[in-house]
Amino acid sequence: MDTVKIGLCGLGTVGTGVVKVLQGHQERIQHMLGCKIEIEKVLAHDISKARDVEIDPNWLTTDPSDLVDHDEIEVIVEVMGGIDETYKILERALKNKKHVVTANKDLMALHGQKLIQIAKENQCDIQYDASIAGGIPIVRTLVDGLASDHIEKVMGIVNGTTNFIMTKMTKEGLDFDVVLKEAQKLGFAEADPSADVDGLDAARKMVLLANLAFKMELNLDDVKVKGIRQVTQEDINFADNLGYTIKLIGIASMDDHKAEVTVEPTLLPKDHPLALVNDEFNAVFVHGEAVGETMFYGPGAGSLPTATAVVSDLMEVIRHLRLGISGKSYVEPQFKRQLKADHEKFSRHFIRLDVEDQAGAFQEITNVFSENSVSFAKILQLPAKEKGRAEIVMVTHHISQEQLLKSMQALEKLTVVKRLISHYRVDGEE
Amino acid sequence: MDTVKIGLCGLGTVGTGVVKVLQGHQERIQHMLGCKIEIEKVLAHDISKARDVEIDPNWLTTDPSDLVDHDEIEVIVEVMGGIDETYKILERALKNKKHVVTANKDLMALHGQKLIQIAKENQCDIQYDASIAGGIPIVRTLVDGLASDHIEKVMGIVNGTTNFIMTKMTKEGLDFDVVLKEAQKLGFAEADPSADVDGLDAARKMVLLANLAFKMELNLDDVKVKGIRQVTQEDINFADNLGYTIKLIGIASMDDHKAEVTVEPTLLPKDHPLALVNDEFNAVFVHGEAVGETMFYGPGAGSLPTATAVVSDLMEVIRHLRLGISGKSYVEPQFKRQLKADHEKFSRHFIRLDVEDQAGAFQEITNVFSENSVSFAKILQLPAKEKGRAEIVMVTHHISQEQLLKSMQALEKLTVVKRLISHYRVDGEE
Repeated sequence: MDTVKIGLCGLGTVGTGVVKVLQGHQERIQHMLGCKIEIEKVLAHDISKARDVEIDPNWLTTDPSDLVDHDEIEVIVEVMGGIDETYKILERALKNKKHVVTANKDLMALHGQKLIQIAKENQCDIQYDASIAGGIPIVRTLVDGLASDHIEKVMGIVNGTTNFIMTKMTKEGLDFDVVLKEAQKLGFAEADPSADVDGLDAARKMVLLANLAFKMELNLDDVKVKGIRQVTQEDINFADNLGYTIKLIGIASMDDHKAEVTVEPTLLPKDHPLALVNDEFNAVFVHGEAVGETMFYGPGAGSLPTATAVVSDLMEVIRHLRLGISGKSYVEPQFKRQLKADHEKFSRHFIRLDVEDQAGAFQEITNVFSENSVSFAKILQLPAKEKGRAEIVMVTHHISQEQLLKSMQALEKLTVVKRLISHYRVDGEE
Repeated sequence: MDTVKIGLCGLGTVGTGVVKVLQGHQERIQHMLGCKIEIEKVLAHDISKARDVEIDPNWLTTDPSDLVDHDEIEVIVEVMGGIDETYKILERALKNKKHVVTANKDLMALHGQKLIQIAKENQCDIQYDASIAGGIPIVRTLVDGLASDHIEKVMGIVNGTTNFIMTKMTKEGLDFDVVLKEAQKLGFAEADPSADVDGLDAARKMVLLANLAFKMELNLDDVKVKGIRQVTQEDINFADNLGYTIKLIGIASMDDHKAEVTVEPTLLPKDHPLALVNDEFNAVFVHGEAVGETMFYGPGAGSLPTATAVVSDLMEVIRHLRLGISGKSYVEPQFKRQLKADHEKFSRHFIRLDVEDQAGAFQEITNVFSENSVSFAKILQLPAKEKGRAEIVMVTHHISQEQLLKSMQALEKLTVVKRLISHYRVDGEE
């Protein structure tokens, strides 16, 4: 029986997980691939350290070239993390015609396009499913399972940290700052949380997903991003009263070959499948023309789910190798990068205004909206805490971004409107 | 470039869907397989009928042997339905070393084991993902994506008809009989609904899923099945008040290499991911040792989702063909068929009793439970409609089936207990 030799970069929790999975499921894997997988070399910082997994001492090295220049190694599995050094290792591996599996989302977000390009030039595969949503086989599903469908919309909770924070804020009535501190204590948020809470991490993943789903070549700059720092308990309560839950949602949609990708706090009906995805869990909701609605739910990260996903990616690489289609199964951009204009972006909106509580104020405001043909599904006026003030909370029907912006500009000019307190997208309903 | 020729049995809505998908995604499919797929022959009842898809007249035949005895056809795709005739066609195809893709769940439920055996003997693949849960790639995920994980529990809503009925009963407060009639009118339930509402269809699917997940060889007789006919509005309301939703749930669990498979109306916490799967949708929740909780949600059936799943299965068969692993990727039973005994089956239970409303009745009943070491998470006593009667509603902590049965037998002997009104499993919480 044939054997495929691999080099493993990194022997932390994910790396030892990969070794365990490969050792524990050898027979099964052989059945499924028609060949054996053998670890040939392992790159580790400290080769003398004890590990809770059986490691052949001959595997261990501290020199990357023992892996990437090794004649017999066909696949490099990278689970060491890091950016610059790691990029160099993978670049060299690809140039040496070695296929790559990586779980490194920071690296893929920063240098993914470059690495994919180098892989293509060298007829190599680069698989990074494990870097997007840990235990959710979403890349595979978009490339494979839904290959023969036309995907219209991908909507997801793709960042565990922000979902943990939003869940705590919603369930326990705590403010953002308090929950963020707790998340940092528990290790769910970084000391510098901005990549997560400002939506950048989610935006990076949504670009990858949108490009796979729509066969387009979008960039991070094409994503409209808004984080969760400004979400208040009052917003959450108003949303709740109107039947909605607020989540940080990435949405990629395509109509008429024009795309829109956004990441922002979004109101979802409480019975929408994504509304119940809580804590650090991730989920991706796909709307295909043929298949209709499907959703994939799972842990967003974690060393064991990631190790499982890495092995799954590795098996896919070896399958391609044996099929003779390595470097060929990229979803090639088929459509020109084309974005929706503001008058083509449709959605519903939740708007909260601070207004003067005087006769005719409500009338003035609704006039502005009706001049822009904006109609409402729900509208509430309530007394504000401050005397002589009121709050107006509205949920619009589907309107264009253009209608929204024009209405907002006109509202600013009204003296009865003191302030736009908050504004969110509303999605997940007809 | 190589070409794989296929024979398509059936040209109804799913069949024409398959033709459309193959024609519409030729280039993409070639990229992914390294070969072309060509339709060589199509078996149809009426070859003169007009179809809304481009059909080469040379494809059409009414004679199955034009497909199954054709020298160049390598894969038979069966989407015609039917049992006996269809079985004969597929049996002959497999004996002629042709691989099979089928979306026929009735056939697979009745003759699946036999067909799989014949396929193995002839080193052929038989793929039936499309027959289990239409648009959900769950077989693929269990075989492939989670191949390297140890699966502990599979829990699913795998029957669209009963989920449609339970959703209507819950949301609209209607009785079973009324909703069943509506479902029949809408085409969501058959004229003879028993295979669905009595849980048999779900049980068939749970056996297939359990065997894949646990690598065991269980039979339909190993499944404890209870349908939804006896679920009342009162049950639904009590469940609701206690924070639960009632769904027809299939559960397959394994501890210590012993399995338990059940299909029964089950109370789930309202915020459990499965509790929000409504209408005719299906979902399968998988608990793996490494990956933790993942869920796959999608349409249970429908002609377009099924056609998409069929093409996905076909691509898998061709991938195996080209890898030289046809007939080898079956999940071979690795464990002896071993079932949990009653004292090893643990779960929580919801119990509703009709009792005499007299001093000491409550005491007598709780004594019976405490003699069997059964303790309660929730317990309510309410006046019943009938004078002199009361209802007691309880939710137990985790207890064994043995404890439950002993308690029930002891309760029957009490004169204060008039009747066990209803009893359901409670799952999805710690």
